[in-house]
Amino acid sequence: MNEIKHAIQDDYPDDFAWCYGCGRLNEEGHHFRTGVDGEKTVTVYTPQPEHTALPGFVYGGLIASLIDCHGTGSAAIELHKLNGGSVGDGAEPPRFVTASLHVDFMKPTPHGVPLKAVGTVEKIHPKKFKVVTEVFAEGEICAKGEVVAVVMPETFLKKG
Amino acid sequence: MNEIKHAIQDDYPDDFAWCYGCGRLNEEGHHFRTGVDGEKTVTVYTPQPEHTALPGFVYGGLIASLIDCHGTGSAAIELHKLNGGSVGDGAEPPRFVTASLHVDFMKPTPHGVPLKAVGTVEKIHPKKFKVVTEVFAEGEICAKGEVVAVVMPETFLKKG
Repeated sequence: MNEIKHAIQDDYPDDFAWCYGCGRLNEEGHHFRTGVDGEKTVTVYTPQPEHTALPGFVYGGLIASLIDCHGTGSAAIELHKLNGGSVGDGAEPPRFVTASLHVDFMKPTPHGVPLKAVGTVEKIHPKKFKVVTEVFAEGEICAKGEVVAVVMPETFLKKG
Repeated sequence: MNEIKHAIQDDYPDDFAWCYGCGRLNEEGHHFRTGVDGEKTVTVYTPQPEHTALPGFVYGGLIASLIDCHGTGSAAIELHKLNGGSVGDGAEPPRFVTASLHVDFMKPTPHGVPLKAVGTVEKIHPKKFKVVTEVFAEGEICAKGEVVAVVMPETFLKKG
């Protein structure tokens, strides 16, 4: 699956849609979109020409960003499901923020092809989820990531 | 110290200066620059307006990117020193790539102020260094990171 028809980020409320990674209202951002494929979550993104580490290879910080937003999006999908919702139902999904992010760069990631992040979500407790992600390019795994995502504290929205 | 006079990235060879995070030749990139402050390494960067997670707070993927390039830059500084060089001597420093990246997001990072990454480098073996980084905004620690950086394999330059 390389096309995300319904993405959880499509239904984030407007005040939560400004993320540089996955906010649909952030014009300069990456617009990562995370959907469901069976028991897994999937985000597909083709890096821009400038997202290089060295010529021909993808910048690690972009891969970390992909794993980060794929992680919070996957956690939102999982809790939305546990709450009785589904991606694409138009209902406002829960909001998550990243507590920690880990990335193992397994091989140089070729530039110029779509990257596919595939995630598995595990509930740690009702407000805390772990998402293990594998990032593939041309069918080969290039990076492995782990995100611990927590339900966003209300205080986050006060500053804006 | 908030101004980096001499940065290790200033002396990266041209073919290693295309990183989206820290490559001086990547016009669209962040241009992270890493220097020395006593026994520590320092990178200072003010996020762009679009680098938001939520309005008022910095995007985690940008913080991860800062920690990543600060880590490889810090490792390059350390090995350059061990080889008898110093930052700003104009000699070509060793090149590092990231093997793994970990970030703990400790509190929401305020947007609109400079971020200061402060690193401590530890040699694991002659070609592998660990860099522990603390990221501060307005004097408060917002994130902690750890990068394992390895001397770049020659194969990385073949594809470009």
